[in-house]
Amino acid sequence: MNILVLHGPNLNLLGAREPEVYGKTTLAEIDAALIKQGRDRGAEVRCFQSNHEGALIDRIHEARGWAHGLIVNAGGLTHTSVALRDAIASVALPAIEVHLSNVFAREEFRHRSLISGVCVAVVSGFGASSYRLGLEGLLERLAR
Amino acid sequence: MNILVLHGPNLNLLGAREPEVYGKTTLAEIDAALIKQGRDRGAEVRCFQSNHEGALIDRIHEARGWAHGLIVNAGGLTHTSVALRDAIASVALPAIEVHLSNVFAREEFRHRSLISGVCVAVVSGFGASSYRLGLEGLLERLAR
Amino acid sequence: MNILVLHGPNLNLLGAREPEVYGKTTLAEIDAALIKQGRDRGAEVRCFQSNHEGALIDRIHEARGWAHGLIVNAGGLTHTSVALRDAIASVALPAIEVHLSNVFAREEFRHRSLISGVCVAVVSGFGASSYRLGLEGLLERLAR
Amino acid sequence: MNILVLHGPNLNLLGAREPEVYGKTTLAEIDAALIKQGRDRGAEVRCFQSNHEGALIDRIHEARGWAHGLIVNAGGLTHTSVALRDAIASVALPAIEVHLSNVFAREEFRHRSLISGVCVAVVSGFGASSYRLGLEGLLERLAR
Amino acid sequence: MNILVLHGPNLNLLGAREPEVYGKTTLAEIDAALIKQGRDRGAEVRCFQSNHEGALIDRIHEARGWAHGLIVNAGGLTHTSVALRDAIASVALPAIEVHLSNVFAREEFRHRSLISGVCVAVVSGFGASSYRLGLEGLLERLAR
Amino acid sequence: MNILVLHGPNLNLLGAREPEVYGKTTLAEIDAALIKQGRDRGAEVRCFQSNHEGALIDRIHEARGWAHGLIVNAGGLTHTSVALRDAIASVALPAIEVHLSNVFAREEFRHRSLISGVCVAVVSGFGASSYRLGLEGLLERLAR
Amino acid sequence: MNILVLHGPNLNLLGAREPEVYGKTTLAEIDAALIKQGRDRGAEVRCFQSNHEGALIDRIHEARGWAHGLIVNAGGLTHTSVALRDAIASVALPAIEVHLSNVFAREEFRHRSLISGVCVAVVSGFGASSYRLGLEGLLERLAR
Amino acid sequence: MNILVLHGPNLNLLGAREPEVYGKTTLAEIDAALIKQGRDRGAEVRCFQSNHEGALIDRIHEARGWAHGLIVNAGGLTHTSVALRDAIASVALPAIEVHLSNVFAREEFRHRSLISGVCVAVVSGFGASSYRLGLEGLLERLAR
Amino acid sequence: MNILVLHGPNLNLLGAREPEVYGKTTLAEIDAALIKQGRDRGAEVRCFQSNHEGALIDRIHEARGWAHGLIVNAGGLTHTSVALRDAIASVALPAIEVHLSNVFAREEFRHRSLISGVCVAVVSGFGASSYRLGLEGLLERLAR
Amino acid sequence: MNILVLHGPNLNLLGAREPEVYGKTTLAEIDAALIKQGRDRGAEVRCFQSNHEGALIDRIHEARGWAHGLIVNAGGLTHTSVALRDAIASVALPAIEVHLSNVFAREEFRHRSLISGVCVAVVSGFGASSYRLGLEGLLERLAR
Amino acid sequence: MNILVLHGPNLNLLGAREPEVYGKTTLAEIDAALIKQGRDRGAEVRCFQSNHEGALIDRIHEARGWAHGLIVNAGGLTHTSVALRDAIASVALPAIEVHLSNVFAREEFRHRSLISGVCVAVVSGFGASSYRLGLEGLLERLAR
Amino acid sequence: MNILVLHGPNLNLLGAREPEVYGKTTLAEIDAALIKQGRDRGAEVRCFQSNHEGALIDRIHEARGWAHGLIVNAGGLTHTSVALRDAIASVALPAIEVHLSNVFAREEFRHRSLISGVCVAVVSGFGASSYRLGLEGLLERLAR
Repeated sequence: MNILVLHGPNLNLLGAREPEVYGKTTLAEIDAALIKQGRDRGAEVRCFQSNHEGALIDRIHEARGWAHGLIVNAGGLTHTSVALRDAIASVALPAIEVHLSNVFAREEFRHRSLISGVCVAVVSGFGASSYRLGLEGLLERLAR
Repeated sequence: MNILVLHGPNLNLLGAREPEVYGKTTLAEIDAALIKQGRDRGAEVRCFQSNHEGALIDRIHEARGWAHGLIVNAGGLTHTSVALRDAIASVALPAIEVHLSNVFAREEFRHRSLISGVCVAVVSGFGASSYRLGLEGLLERLAR
Repeated sequence: MNILVLHGPNLNLLGAREPEVYGKTTLAEIDAALIKQGRDRGAEVRCFQSNHEGALIDRIHEARGWAHGLIVNAGGLTHTSVALRDAIASVALPAIEVHLSNVFAREEFRHRSLISGVCVAVVSGFGASSYRLGLEGLLERLAR
Repeated sequence: MNILVLHGPNLNLLGAREPEVYGKTTLAEIDAALIKQGRDRGAEVRCFQSNHEGALIDRIHEARGWAHGLIVNAGGLTHTSVALRDAIASVALPAIEVHLSNVFAREEFRHRSLISGVCVAVVSGFGASSYRLGLEGLLERLAR
Repeated sequence: MNILVLHGPNLNLLGAREPEVYGKTTLAEIDAALIKQGRDRGAEVRCFQSNHEGALIDRIHEARGWAHGLIVNAGGLTHTSVALRDAIASVALPAIEVHLSNVFAREEFRHRSLISGVCVAVVSGFGASSYRLGLEGLLERLAR
Repeated sequence: MNILVLHGPNLNLLGAREPEVYGKTTLAEIDAALIKQGRDRGAEVRCFQSNHEGALIDRIHEARGWAHGLIVNAGGLTHTSVALRDAIASVALPAIEVHLSNVFAREEFRHRSLISGVCVAVVSGFGASSYRLGLEGLLERLAR
Repeated sequence: MNILVLHGPNLNLLGAREPEVYGKTTLAEIDAALIKQGRDRGAEVRCFQSNHEGALIDRIHEARGWAHGLIVNAGGLTHTSVALRDAIASVALPAIEVHLSNVFAREEFRHRSLISGVCVAVVSGFGASSYRLGLEGLLERLAR
Repeated sequence: MNILVLHGPNLNLLGAREPEVYGKTTLAEIDAALIKQGRDRGAEVRCFQSNHEGALIDRIHEARGWAHGLIVNAGGLTHTSVALRDAIASVALPAIEVHLSNVFAREEFRHRSLISGVCVAVVSGFGASSYRLGLEGLLERLAR
Repeated sequence: MNILVLHGPNLNLLGAREPEVYGKTTLAEIDAALIKQGRDRGAEVRCFQSNHEGALIDRIHEARGWAHGLIVNAGGLTHTSVALRDAIASVALPAIEVHLSNVFAREEFRHRSLISGVCVAVVSGFGASSYRLGLEGLLERLAR
Repeated sequence: MNILVLHGPNLNLLGAREPEVYGKTTLAEIDAALIKQGRDRGAEVRCFQSNHEGALIDRIHEARGWAHGLIVNAGGLTHTSVALRDAIASVALPAIEVHLSNVFAREEFRHRSLISGVCVAVVSGFGASSYRLGLEGLLERLAR
Repeated sequence: MNILVLHGPNLNLLGAREPEVYGKTTLAEIDAALIKQGRDRGAEVRCFQSNHEGALIDRIHEARGWAHGLIVNAGGLTHTSVALRDAIASVALPAIEVHLSNVFAREEFRHRSLISGVCVAVVSGFGASSYRLGLEGLLERLAR
Repeated sequence: MNILVLHGPNLNLLGAREPEVYGKTTLAEIDAALIKQGRDRGAEVRCFQSNHEGALIDRIHEARGWAHGLIVNAGGLTHTSVALRDAIASVALPAIEVHLSNVFAREEFRHRSLISGVCVAVVSGFGASSYRLGLEGLLERLAR
């Protein structure tokens, strides 16, 4: 079972930026935990971060044939990128939308997700644990 | 650690209604699993379902003093009940919004949640597992 | 052939309230007429009124297994209750939406019905006769 | 008692077009049934179909002095014609709005009827029976 | 100087319909008065009424080469007909939009005129005198 | 002179919930004060709180024949309940809309009141005194 | 018969500002012509211009008892002043809304007039002649 | 304790205008009553009416240092004046928004108040008593 | 292979109206070219223009049984006619939407096409060549 | 080179009102600095503040013939005054829109400026320096 | 004559992704066909695909001086990228907007194209042939 | 004092594109001027242009630790990029939003800036001088 985890714009700053708000966990630590969580469940997890919409789309395309599912935290692109939505739809893999904060309780313009329509599930607001819970749910779903 | 799980309108039909869509798991089975999951983590979980908005609000009020957190699947009330929102806000407990299906990928009128603004996190679309993941995330949060 | 007739909030006042507008027919008289109309057609009709959204949903749930169709005048809930909509959808029975007055010719906020999307037909504006015509249409449909 | 029945654009294709959806009943058969239904009730029914908004308006005007009520299925004009609305209003006759399918459960742009505001009642979704129920309700109303 | 006066749907009923509201002046009388008003000013006035959008457009097209200006009371088409708008624009003649009642003080859907954007002026609310004032203004404008 | 005071969802928590915001006055104290205020003015005041929309509607219906006026703080139902609006309208009694906080200065979704259209007056933002001022205004109005 | 003519903000610049667009007629010339037009019809016309919303309202109030009708070109206030609308409504005099240019064919924000709802008629787009036609229509109306 | 009462556009006509609707009480009488009500409570009340937005703002500015609270009936400016809102906000005094009629039950464009966001409370619909109740509530608040 | 080409309102003026904008090609020339283009491809092309919505619908109906595809330039009806949309849908033939100018780059109200939803393709903005390219694409599609 | 600087409602309170937010600089000091800045550049600067929309418009009109450019901080009128917009447009002078705070980052209703459409540039958010930067940019522009 | 063909995000998957929907034609085959089509007409065609908005903009910039026209299938960026729109506008070359599917008949959020406003024509819905027809139309236009 | 200047998509074309509109100043010249302006004030200025959203975000991230403030002309991304907004917010540096043209006076879709909410000030419409004025204001602010 192979899983691709995608982190969108600004998530590379995790841990360094506003630690009192977002916690001190870095993206590297999150990735390490996800890889381990996957390994414990017999799954290979690969992680990729980019601030470039195009690079994220490229990576999704490359995942075809290899990956069985996606974990996607698209950051700010969540609300604006039809292209990313189309990329997820085009590979026809089950995708889990993940957010650190509860975006549905923030500014009005963050309430609309263009990604949701092509994802099977959403986890939002558990901080770094959103990834873990999302991966857990995805693996369980794939196991069925 | 005490957790109140609330199921809103129509969720009592779970398992019996359209099993090919929603699976064969009944609400009783979900409740049993959540209670066990809680016990394994040293937490007491109580579950309550009602088709009455008022009964759900009453139950939230009663939880004051006892509960340390809420798991809320408000069903159709998610999109229409300011009263339920106010009830959650009034008890000042961390609440997790849960949905079986990915409501954000369904009809337009299900995209707006009046509950999200007073919940700390959302899990949506993992079927019955949405509850489990939500409880896991809530307990982890309370443990911090 | 079994039919459940549901009357929503405030319909219990029929006949007593503003008789010059709504006529002098009481809800009891409407129910009696519908039961007789059903019996003449070989159908059993049961009627239920409540001002409680939850009680209406409960009643719809209980109708599963017994009823073959629904007549629903949801009153003010027509325009606000996603939960009622979900209840109708969940029992997968043909439902007829009924209104005494022509709601589509009244205030703007009464033009949108959340119930219509899960009903097979609508009768609106014939006063107490809306029920009779709706029942007639429903029985005919079930007979096909 | 004289009743004018109006069929708007595309209804002439009834029975021929997509019979698996709309049934095999033709407009001629509907008209014959309505004329007979009227005669049984001591009313004269005349029917008119046109794909031309103007021809429908002309026909409504001509009905003044003769007709005591209107049955109107305006087809696609329902959602776009203020002129037809004004025509119905100008003859000051009770009008029943009729639709074969439940337009309120279809595309968004079919949810708004410009005709409803000047009609006394609406029947929508009973197929060809929508006409019969509408005529029944109209005759009953005129008899009062 | 040649002027074409166009009356849209339902205006043929003028005088006969609701005389207590619209006055007893018939369209024939309005036309006669406009023709006389034109003659007194050395202008030929021709009048045309139709309930058919297409007939009105045909008539506008035919006016090319002959007419120097248009008086248009499009009735209900005012708010719905892009085709009529395009017809007026296509003949490149100064057009005056006329309404008997003050449409801007009536229902919301009458506040938007699709015709205004291609007319040089609007007269609305003077009853039958709206035509006379509109013709007076048009002739004066053409005389400049 | 008989007055019915209605408190909607969550108002039972008054005094206990966030006292630094809403003050320490409990609903029981408010009710006692209103009853006394009424008695001083020769009026009987009865109070009723419920978290159930249906119970509130039931109570309004029961007030017919007895009550001469209503004081309504519908809480979160203010913004969502057409059924409650219809109940108030159906008993044809002068009703005063009351809010503890100034709802018009809070979240966008609290700016629209479905109740206002059937109430004669609104008092909003004086805390517990909103009730007292509303009762004073209502009694004065009834005395005229 | 006494008529008050009101000119709103910026109309004092008429004739001096962009003469190639608005013509060379000054406001003084328009006023003189209106006064003469009134005198010829046995009516006294008084004119008043101000760039101050409040001054216009004051002037409308003073007209009570003296004036039998109003001609109002509110300029930019047309689209923004509820206070001016209320002033016109409060004196209960027939008012004619006048515009030099055809505001309904200009920017979107000029399409909505807050004044129209309390005026009996509108003349828009005839340049300085809009006033003359409006006065003519008003006098004729008052003569009836 | 010093209170400034502000009356916006058209309120000077009170009593003279449509007495069957607004009552026969004049603004002078309202002012006298408020001044007396204040004196009885040991407060000085000053009243000011203007049809000029600017004059109202000037008066609010002048109140700084003297007044401890404001009573504001902004009339039509309620719905259109950001400048008045800013003036109220700039003096940082508790302000009570007052309306004679229940504006929230009138035309759509009166439902939005630009003033509410900077006022602590609203009283609307008690006729002249709205002022008295508002003053009572304000004095009570200031006394706390 | 039989193709029906439909030209909506005002297209009869082509070539005569504003030749510097729309070119000097007349509709007769366009029709001739399309007929020849069809013949070269072994297809029969028939062309029909009308300013009457109803006539266009009639013609579409008549095409059933004969035509294998439609080319539709609905002119101004593109944006307003649900009836025309329904007509196209009812004959279940592949239809190509054609526009001379690029309507999606013109006025806001031309951006929404009611026809697009039932057409298989759109060609817009190539002037008279839009027809030729549309026919080419349609024939190619039918050939598959 | 002559420049008119206009300050709208409430700006007279600058320095006195909320100094911790807006700084201690008074409007008199800003004016003195602008006059000096102008003199250093060989330009005469005149400043004018009013809380009256009409007075601001009057002042703009008077500036014709004398001024070569305008600096406008319209305060709350920015978002509501079409009349002020028209005044700026009518004098055909280059105008710079200035705001102390960054209005585009404040409440929703401050995001729309009715003034921007007739100004050549905007400076917003630099506090008192917004004026200085605006004047600098305007003089540079006029020098070209 | 030189033409640049641009393919936006996800179009690289053509042929490989959902062949039963999009056909088996690959982007390489489309490019080869376009290059040949150009050569036959004496034009040089260059093709470029990227999932990166920025890379597409870079490529458009580089085309200046070389290209005489553009063919643009912007994929999901069609609906979201003002930057791409500006890039097309900045090079002032005639551009043809191309879509494989009929985007105007798909999801609501695909109906608005930010690109259309700066393109001279649109071809949508012919599958791979959309490119060919668009190129044909562009070359014809350039030849004029 | 270190300042990062960011230029978004299409700004690299400055000087070369439409020089009669945008002037002949190139981006290199603007950058040189800004660097010199900074040096004269004892500040180091670095400039970066990219057509890639991701590259701009990367650059903002790299600026952490070095830069004390940002000058951002995001070009078309201004209106569509939540990711860029988040990037600016994440580095917690004072940012000045800059535009060459007055975007608030251009197309509707350019009126909303997603960047404004996280910038302290805006300068828009002074051409190349917008940068200079923005830098001046930023340095002054940082000096406080």
